[in-house]
Amino acid sequence: MNITVFFSSFFTSLMLIVVPVFSTLPPFVEIDDLILNLKESPTLATQKQVAKLKNENRTIYNWGIGTSPFSPPECIVNTLRNYAHKKQYTPVEGIPELQQILSEKYSRNNYLIQQQNIIVSSGLKQIIFDIQRAWGGEILLVSPYWVSYPVQTYLLQKRPQIIYTSAKDDYKLQPEQIKDYCQKSPSSAKLIIFNHPVNPTGCSYTDKELKQLAKIFEEYGIVVLADEVYLGCGHGGDARSISDYLPNNTIRASSLSKEFAAAGYRLGWAVFPESLSSLKKAVACIGSTSYSCAPVPQQYAAVKALESGIEICQYKRDVQEIMKILGKDCYQKMIEIGLKCTLPKAAWYLLIDFEPYRVKLEKIGITNSQHLSLALLDGIGFVTVPGEAFGLPPEQLAVRASYVDFDGDFAIVSGPEKGSNTWAPKIHECLEALESWIKSL
Amino acid sequence: MNITVFFSSFFTSLMLIVVPVFSTLPPFVEIDDLILNLKESPTLATQKQVAKLKNENRTIYNWGIGTSPFSPPECIVNTLRNYAHKKQYTPVEGIPELQQILSEKYSRNNYLIQQQNIIVSSGLKQIIFDIQRAWGGEILLVSPYWVSYPVQTYLLQKRPQIIYTSAKDDYKLQPEQIKDYCQKSPSSAKLIIFNHPVNPTGCSYTDKELKQLAKIFEEYGIVVLADEVYLGCGHGGDARSISDYLPNNTIRASSLSKEFAAAGYRLGWAVFPESLSSLKKAVACIGSTSYSCAPVPQQYAAVKALESGIEICQYKRDVQEIMKILGKDCYQKMIEIGLKCTLPKAAWYLLIDFEPYRVKLEKIGITNSQHLSLALLDGIGFVTVPGEAFGLPPEQLAVRASYVDFDGDFAIVSGPEKGSNTWAPKIHECLEALESWIKSL
Repeated sequence: MNITVFFSSFFTSLMLIVVPVFSTLPPFVEIDDLILNLKESPTLATQKQVAKLKNENRTIYNWGIGTSPFSPPECIVNTLRNYAHKKQYTPVEGIPELQQILSEKYSRNNYLIQQQNIIVSSGLKQIIFDIQRAWGGEILLVSPYWVSYPVQTYLLQKRPQIIYTSAKDDYKLQPEQIKDYCQKSPSSAKLIIFNHPVNPTGCSYTDKELKQLAKIFEEYGIVVLADEVYLGCGHGGDARSISDYLPNNTIRASSLSKEFAAAGYRLGWAVFPESLSSLKKAVACIGSTSYSCAPVPQQYAAVKALESGIEICQYKRDVQEIMKILGKDCYQKMIEIGLKCTLPKAAWYLLIDFEPYRVKLEKIGITNSQHLSLALLDGIGFVTVPGEAFGLPPEQLAVRASYVDFDGDFAIVSGPEKGSNTWAPKIHECLEALESWIKSL
Repeated sequence: MNITVFFSSFFTSLMLIVVPVFSTLPPFVEIDDLILNLKESPTLATQKQVAKLKNENRTIYNWGIGTSPFSPPECIVNTLRNYAHKKQYTPVEGIPELQQILSEKYSRNNYLIQQQNIIVSSGLKQIIFDIQRAWGGEILLVSPYWVSYPVQTYLLQKRPQIIYTSAKDDYKLQPEQIKDYCQKSPSSAKLIIFNHPVNPTGCSYTDKELKQLAKIFEEYGIVVLADEVYLGCGHGGDARSISDYLPNNTIRASSLSKEFAAAGYRLGWAVFPESLSSLKKAVACIGSTSYSCAPVPQQYAAVKALESGIEICQYKRDVQEIMKILGKDCYQKMIEIGLKCTLPKAAWYLLIDFEPYRVKLEKIGITNSQHLSLALLDGIGFVTVPGEAFGLPPEQLAVRASYVDFDGDFAIVSGPEKGSNTWAPKIHECLEALESWIKSL
């Protein structure tokens, strides 16, 4: 069990990695103290470093960013084209057509989504930010977490409570952890951001695990913000939502970015059960004061995506199969060369632990995950994100790697069954380079 | 001179008009106190009320929202179509092509915009929010102001300093007001949000006025966030930017929403001189933590817009001429029926003052701008926004009206010279209805 009040260490960690850009302020400029101690999102910052190495003509294996390697389904792109002339503001709740399809898609017997209980925004990240802003009680995060959660909490001058999971549990949250925490801190209303399937591990909770967690969440009246952006990227089909077991306490949220490979469209949504309509209203107030509404042509594209026609279904099957095959290949190679990780069950993430090589790595000065990530980048052009960015202890020699450095469209055309050597040769090249690097230690 | 520390009265004003949606929170839900006292943006809320009246088959004259009555230029829509397949995240600074054209368009002899000193976002509103968040010193607003400025400041738990302008000055900020304020409060770094041309008055500062203000801003080291979203909507061509006289202290910001009539595209930008690059970096940090990047197909559309080709130039000339003719017609009618307002010089706004009819209005229970706005809506279906929303004293009988309730595309095709009776008949119908309403008092 490892639960810690987070703020001071989080603050220190930000201080450690802050880019010192604010040292020479002109006398008439004053930057907010909160921002002075902040830096750019690590995953985006990595991309800039990659651009630099590319300019130097270095071979780059870009496993650093979590974007889909596929093009969006053609019907979604065509829908954007067809609605390119749509130019009027919409409510924060989105166009009626999108409200309707979201309501239909998300409503179940015990989980009814009314059209007014929907938020549509310029990406899911913005909605998560706004829900954190609107929430008046405690905010619980599960480490390892998506990098942006705690930075958002920090920017809002709120203190996230971090629950640290263990490698032995595949970094999955355990019901007893929640129970213990709530017994120690029973007073305040609690919101937990629950990412399933999980970035950065690629893990997925089983139905049984979801059910057990839901029971505890319900018992202690915890509101769950279910970040389900990878739910449609399950390697065995769409994963199950915790809302099935926790209908009154769950906000479900997703976007076009991952499942539909349209990150640049900037379109996300969240749906609230009637029991949380007050929270939805608060989030809508914030939205109308910041982004006004989601980009409108994209809202029509989202309707097409959510209609789940034949093209979309086939596309998802292809994507899920390809990522499953490739995930297994990557996992097996990691195990083969003596690294630790878990077989991914969704999306395209691996949390790779280099602990078995700690002694050798320390001999060449690599004592934390940032050193490790930098050494992999400089040594073999392997772009990863240090585990520290996700809340792991800095000294843990772990990095997140996204196996998306291949042409997904070509993989679909080739046919997944041909084997990933055929359609993802650069992934294998990187794995070979990693093996050589490990052997050279 | 009328400068007031704003917070308590602003807070009260929010309380007065808050929609009481948060009275029945379930026990496990806790909403942030800041949000509990907030409501939706008044201009968007108005639209919902309009939808309701439309459902009742009432005739509605929708002068309530500030969107362009024109379609975007066809070349912009076509560019969005052509880049509908662009699906990758970009930096907060935007795609290189957009950085380049923004840098070229905004750079002058004494105002050089480097490509890294640019922010592109899902609408200008978001950037203004983020600049307010990043700023560590005082924030000055000029009343009457755009409704969203102070709500954003409030959400950030900062205290805006409001400088109240006078009707006798056409609600334009006077240099002595700034001077007096700075002498009373000399210590802190200051950022002023300077909207020119002005929403809600339609007024535009003359070159001489800009020069005088710039001199004072420079003398007191005030940083200017120039909200220039209506700069390209000047009735005599593009208005001049204050940056011409204040190059080192001015952030220039605009969007596709007004000048290019593409509000639903959600694409805005801000450019910073090198002297303010530290502030730009702070804003970029916030952006990468909330919206990530602006919608990407729209970024390409923005490049096309900013290239200012022949089609765009002709479009802008048409729009500017039409809005000038119609603005003059509306203004003359207001004067004719005994109301007070100023001849608009840009965009499509009129701040209409019903003070000459105060005695008659008070007799029927209309004692403030909210009563007035509601009476106009209920009486003749005339949608306006109460002056209080823009920071005017609640008891001042003023409303903002946007003369956009006509088909702009038809006006272009008809030819502006045919007279606004031809291409904007509903505007005239509303003016007649208003005249009858006034006479019936």
